[in-house]
Amino acid sequence: MPTAAAPPRINDRRLLTDINRLAQIGAGADGSIYRIAGNDADMAARDWIDKTMRVTGLHAYYDAVGNVFSRRLSTSGPWLLIGSHSDTVPAAGHLDGAYGVIAAMEVLRTLHEHDHPMANHVETVAWFDEEGVMEGSKGGLTGSTALTRDPHADDLFAYLELHVEQGPRMERAGLDLSPVTGIVGVRRYTVSATGQANHAGTTPFELRQDAGRVVTRAAAELRRICQKADPASIGNAGVISFQPAAANVVPGAASVKLEVRAGTEQALDAIEGSLRDFVAEVAAEEGCDAEVDRTSAKPAAVFDERVYGMVEEVCRRHTGACEPLLSYAGHDASVISTRLPTAMLFVPSTGGYSHSNREHTADEHLLLGAQALLDTVVRVGEDMLPQTFTRDLVAA
Amino acid sequence: MPTAAAPPRINDRRLLTDINRLAQIGAGADGSIYRIAGNDADMAARDWIDKTMRVTGLHAYYDAVGNVFSRRLSTSGPWLLIGSHSDTVPAAGHLDGAYGVIAAMEVLRTLHEHDHPMANHVETVAWFDEEGVMEGSKGGLTGSTALTRDPHADDLFAYLELHVEQGPRMERAGLDLSPVTGIVGVRRYTVSATGQANHAGTTPFELRQDAGRVVTRAAAELRRICQKADPASIGNAGVISFQPAAANVVPGAASVKLEVRAGTEQALDAIEGSLRDFVAEVAAEEGCDAEVDRTSAKPAAVFDERVYGMVEEVCRRHTGACEPLLSYAGHDASVISTRLPTAMLFVPSTGGYSHSNREHTADEHLLLGAQALLDTVVRVGEDMLPQTFTRDLVAA
Repeated sequence: MPTAAAPPRINDRRLLTDINRLAQIGAGADGSIYRIAGNDADMAARDWIDKTMRVTGLHAYYDAVGNVFSRRLSTSGPWLLIGSHSDTVPAAGHLDGAYGVIAAMEVLRTLHEHDHPMANHVETVAWFDEEGVMEGSKGGLTGSTALTRDPHADDLFAYLELHVEQGPRMERAGLDLSPVTGIVGVRRYTVSATGQANHAGTTPFELRQDAGRVVTRAAAELRRICQKADPASIGNAGVISFQPAAANVVPGAASVKLEVRAGTEQALDAIEGSLRDFVAEVAAEEGCDAEVDRTSAKPAAVFDERVYGMVEEVCRRHTGACEPLLSYAGHDASVISTRLPTAMLFVPSTGGYSHSNREHTADEHLLLGAQALLDTVVRVGEDMLPQTFTRDLVAA
Repeated sequence: MPTAAAPPRINDRRLLTDINRLAQIGAGADGSIYRIAGNDADMAARDWIDKTMRVTGLHAYYDAVGNVFSRRLSTSGPWLLIGSHSDTVPAAGHLDGAYGVIAAMEVLRTLHEHDHPMANHVETVAWFDEEGVMEGSKGGLTGSTALTRDPHADDLFAYLELHVEQGPRMERAGLDLSPVTGIVGVRRYTVSATGQANHAGTTPFELRQDAGRVVTRAAAELRRICQKADPASIGNAGVISFQPAAANVVPGAASVKLEVRAGTEQALDAIEGSLRDFVAEVAAEEGCDAEVDRTSAKPAAVFDERVYGMVEEVCRRHTGACEPLLSYAGHDASVISTRLPTAMLFVPSTGGYSHSNREHTADEHLLLGAQALLDTVVRVGEDMLPQTFTRDLVAA
């Protein structure tokens, strides 16, 4: 099988300049970004992406949802889709989503300028409303979810997304680039307990129906429940309240919001089962009624083995060793993986900060990630579109 | 030693009528009482007490704080003080405080009408601001605290207070009347923890500084800490909060308000020591800073052995067996016990309800309690003022 020439080198200065340019759209005085999906800044960012690609001589277009795509003019596919989202949470950092969008634009522009065979088979995307903070959003991932139901998905043969890690694991482990094996499923629960409010002085322990104890015991136990079911899973108790909330009144009602993340549905099911058992047991001990209400569930995504393998190969080529990571944050890639062979690459986040103006990644990692994305695009093309390479190389 | 004639019988109908009459002053549509110290209803109630005793031919007067006293005209003491408070919490029941005030008024009126030797040696009191919900109150017990610093206390030789239990223990144990050994000390704490707010997906357990876990673990452990230090102690976690309070954010700050009650200062000290140790240990485990701030402390009161013994004797006379109780609610008696030999009697609270319009005690218990108060007054007089009885009896 013939192989293409060595992948071309991205334009380092253009990549870093464009990251900074997009970071100025919707930026507050302290550098925090406010590109909530659909707001003026978000729409200005999409316009800027559209115009930037047009200026390069590429075809850029919006779909009905608000996703912005770009590709070479007069190509007929199939295309390898690459990108990320350009919206943000309020007071966001400048890399979450944006980095993957700019890197994808850089990859296509580089391939196009070098007239590389894969230039005809790459499409970039800036997803609409990944974050889900827009008023009326049904939990985000709006643009990618829409694509899974769009006939255009039939023209695509795989999806790659480059993203900052948003956590501290790579930095702590000294990793410069990591292939991502999948994305955790996320389930949220509200644990509510109802007992009997009463005088905290005159009601002996054995006669209490203390709803507060049900939820504090559940919150305190969550970590053990997760670790027992799956050492790679995590959980959080983020919101808690007692009623009527007085120091000298036994709580008659209480609730806590829990979130659990794990790499497989089996692990999520096991955790949920243990949680329900524990809450039922504690509620019985405390003489309360309790409910575990699953308020949302995003399924776990396990990435395509073949595409993942090529990402891993490229990562190893660049960094020697490489450690596969599971993503604990959600991404459009999890939705798209239900429709297309999908994989992701991570670069480190300094200090692990994200959703904050402290979000940062060193320039060398930003450049490395974008180059690795380009190399993966070429590698995936060689593997999944061999005839294209043959034809293009013959034609060249 | 000569003894007085059998104690006279209280006027049952007058006692019940007066309880209902006072219950109408400050009552809302649903029967809940709103006699917050110093409000119009509270002042009207005090006027009613003052006039009711004057009409009986007794001397009634206010002190500078707002306490209302009454006694026979032209007596010179020493007096045995009896009474309770006439103010309430908002939306209160009609017995907490009021019952002890009316019963004391009934006891003095009965002794006066029967020209009993003790009639010259009883003073009644309706304390001002026991509850501490008046704006500007420093935690309540205002009237009784003022008396401990007033020269009038030198004219008094003991204090007795009759009260509803405000809890379910007597009803559950089938007790009609109980002597009270003392009043728990009450300490309140705010446990505050500071960690680092972070993404609940991308921050592994071992890198978290989860302030929420410090306070939920402390709240969940409080009962064990109390029971280990003193099986008769109790505690409550009544108010809790996390910051920033989002399901997917590790709490960066958290606090819980705890309250602990025990019958001795030694037990309270032991509980506080264990609580501080536990919080320090958990904070270290969770990588957080934590503080245990003692926000208030009311000392435990152990009642006078001699006066308590006479209360117990009267209770046993009325009910055969009798069970001593520790009071888990605060009372003016705890303050007065620092200045005068003091004891209390309890009658049962139906269902244990208090600070609620469900507060209720059966008429037979209300009558029994008031008669027992009168009997105790006579018994204490015989014991502590023997010469009075001799003289009065000789004079008779």
